[in-house]
Amino acid sequence: MPLGRRIAAETVGTGVLVAAVVGSGIMGQVLAPDQVLLQLLCNAFATVAVLGVLIALMGAVSGAHFNPAVTLADAITGRITWSAASAYIGSQLFGGCLGTILAHAMFEQPLVQWTGKTRGGFGQLIGEVVATAGLLLVIAMLVRTGRGPLAAVMVPAWILGAYFFTSSTSFANPAVTVGRALTGSFAGIDPASVPAFVAAQLVGAVIGVGLAALLLGKDT
Amino acid sequence: MPLGRRIAAETVGTGVLVAAVVGSGIMGQVLAPDQVLLQLLCNAFATVAVLGVLIALMGAVSGAHFNPAVTLADAITGRITWSAASAYIGSQLFGGCLGTILAHAMFEQPLVQWTGKTRGGFGQLIGEVVATAGLLLVIAMLVRTGRGPLAAVMVPAWILGAYFFTSSTSFANPAVTVGRALTGSFAGIDPASVPAFVAAQLVGAVIGVGLAALLLGKDT
Amino acid sequence: MPLGRRIAAETVGTGVLVAAVVGSGIMGQVLAPDQVLLQLLCNAFATVAVLGVLIALMGAVSGAHFNPAVTLADAITGRITWSAASAYIGSQLFGGCLGTILAHAMFEQPLVQWTGKTRGGFGQLIGEVVATAGLLLVIAMLVRTGRGPLAAVMVPAWILGAYFFTSSTSFANPAVTVGRALTGSFAGIDPASVPAFVAAQLVGAVIGVGLAALLLGKDT
Amino acid sequence: MPLGRRIAAETVGTGVLVAAVVGSGIMGQVLAPDQVLLQLLCNAFATVAVLGVLIALMGAVSGAHFNPAVTLADAITGRITWSAASAYIGSQLFGGCLGTILAHAMFEQPLVQWTGKTRGGFGQLIGEVVATAGLLLVIAMLVRTGRGPLAAVMVPAWILGAYFFTSSTSFANPAVTVGRALTGSFAGIDPASVPAFVAAQLVGAVIGVGLAALLLGKDT
Repeated sequence: MPLGRRIAAETVGTGVLVAAVVGSGIMGQVLAPDQVLLQLLCNAFATVAVLGVLIALMGAVSGAHFNPAVTLADAITGRITWSAASAYIGSQLFGGCLGTILAHAMFEQPLVQWTGKTRGGFGQLIGEVVATAGLLLVIAMLVRTGRGPLAAVMVPAWILGAYFFTSSTSFANPAVTVGRALTGSFAGIDPASVPAFVAAQLVGAVIGVGLAALLLGKDT
Repeated sequence: MPLGRRIAAETVGTGVLVAAVVGSGIMGQVLAPDQVLLQLLCNAFATVAVLGVLIALMGAVSGAHFNPAVTLADAITGRITWSAASAYIGSQLFGGCLGTILAHAMFEQPLVQWTGKTRGGFGQLIGEVVATAGLLLVIAMLVRTGRGPLAAVMVPAWILGAYFFTSSTSFANPAVTVGRALTGSFAGIDPASVPAFVAAQLVGAVIGVGLAALLLGKDT
Repeated sequence: MPLGRRIAAETVGTGVLVAAVVGSGIMGQVLAPDQVLLQLLCNAFATVAVLGVLIALMGAVSGAHFNPAVTLADAITGRITWSAASAYIGSQLFGGCLGTILAHAMFEQPLVQWTGKTRGGFGQLIGEVVATAGLLLVIAMLVRTGRGPLAAVMVPAWILGAYFFTSSTSFANPAVTVGRALTGSFAGIDPASVPAFVAAQLVGAVIGVGLAALLLGKDT
Repeated sequence: MPLGRRIAAETVGTGVLVAAVVGSGIMGQVLAPDQVLLQLLCNAFATVAVLGVLIALMGAVSGAHFNPAVTLADAITGRITWSAASAYIGSQLFGGCLGTILAHAMFEQPLVQWTGKTRGGFGQLIGEVVATAGLLLVIAMLVRTGRGPLAAVMVPAWILGAYFFTSSTSFANPAVTVGRALTGSFAGIDPASVPAFVAAQLVGAVIGVGLAALLLGKDT
């Protein structure tokens, strides 16, 4: 598959994913301003439904990473070249920002926004570690057991759960985190909170890959 | 498969789909008049559950279009003759109207209604473009990668997400839009708003098919 | 498979199904007395999740009818003998009543109850016709296209949708209707309303089987 | 598969499962303090989504028991040695406690808590019998009909239903019960209520295995 198409797939995929996260958050706020848990429920279902579709569609084109943490893990283990990985990550970040802009356009809001919604603290950072570790564990174990296509079901299922049981509501993705820093709505995050979130995600990614190695052994 | 059966499948399929959209909207209004987001949640789940069943059942009979935008795309790319396409579209529009009437009959309401619920504006029209582009992208990529039967899962998943993240709540279908113009309930749309919605859907369809061509290349 | 085991499977399956319907209705009433739509949502999800499991488990033992309308359709088309059909229907009715009693026992309520909740009227009876016609259409089309095992997914999906879009909330099953006549809770139905519901279900079953014949033709 | 990895899989799996149960309960309480049914809905979806992922991932490593009742049933029927079973059960109990601690850490709460939330009474104990009997029935019938991998779908579906229709909200697992005895949040249980719950679960397990034998016969 030519790199151009792979980059296009990562851009479109990450963009639509972030548009789903941000847009469904706005919809929830508009239709039920006082019902935060119900907003989160709709936000979670919209996100994971779209995520599953995107993985199924883009998997055969680009591998459907949509996530710099996933791309980095692949680069470190030699499954993707570093130059391709750089292009992937750039397109994920670019797509993530486009996704937020698209969501704002659909709801006729300012295209780029700034939120004061601080996220973080030790608890939420542990949440991000757990969410991202689980994500990478899912991917690594499915790939190593020859069940890659099941990622279109298992990754959304993990994210659906993590939306509710991790204290951070599971960003688990640096490109999505950056995209969400551009909105002042439900899904927003103060840009100042982004570095710690991304760091926690990268720590989680390392733990997830390590856990997969521990559970499957080297020879599987 | 004889054309008569295909037409029957498109009529029944589109009719039941619209009955599900309109009927579940009425149910939501009756049981929780003040809970719009919860209404939308029930509306979305009912719609996509029925849509998945209908695609699985009618796929082998008619291809399970239920949507003039899908039929037009097939006609333009030569996958269906123009005369069959005309019959499909006519039966979809007819079925869609029947579906609304059936829903009204079940809830003992006037069979045909007129709503003043204007929908549209630049934001919602972008929403329809996005929702329909995604729908056609899903269908085109599944068909071209030999995974047509997965449409029974992936199309509903896309629509479930789009219900919440697009500002228009994702009509994405001219026949459904026309059917929904005949109800004054939750799912209704002012007939005056229909032309712009349909135009946006057709623009979205072109974008979706184009995006699939871009991502998969010509030779896949 | 010996008839004894098939009868056991129909009894257990219908019993657990009705226990799920009645029990989740009680749970909803206890935890959210004023939220009828949310009660219905939980009731619907609990029912269809259990229904899918029961079909997957009992399909290979008894065919997983759990429904006299389904058994009658099979008897008329010669797929089951009339004597076995009688035993099936008896065990479904018996199991349905046991299921309600089990639900009441779990919630420490009187084991058999009487409700004044009248259901019916022309609209709801049309609802039962639609719900049961769709159910039989799903089953007939899956069986005739060699995809019987998909019933464990498609039947629950249909019922999930029909819970919300049919005005009767989709009983669609004479044995479940009889079982529900023994509870005074959310899922209850006045015994006086049962005959019309069952009649509407049988009309729907005939329409569903006829529709499948129309759509698939005789030679499939 | 070496025992060490199997033990690791049981520890991680049970731990993440309990973290999902407890964490999503806390999230529900924080975001919608007065909406108990909505809390239970989010709690149930988060739990079963994570459970399905864990079964799919750990199935090939340890069999994905995460539940002493399942391990005991396997030991009694000779599918696992008693020494391995002891190690499994120990790691499940240990993992379950770790899971609660992890959930508390994510929400910055005291790591170990004590709740006064008494659970039990005849009705809830019947609920636990039903929930666990169903769980073991699902597992036994899938295994005996050669469809073990479907457990990743069918076990979560059963638990989703049982969350709502059993009066105890379906603990159905001694290790999860012990883990939940360490939290004062939504999912908590008074340690004094644990022995009766576990006893009811073991009774249910026996009934479930017996029912599978009855339905499938000895020679399947």
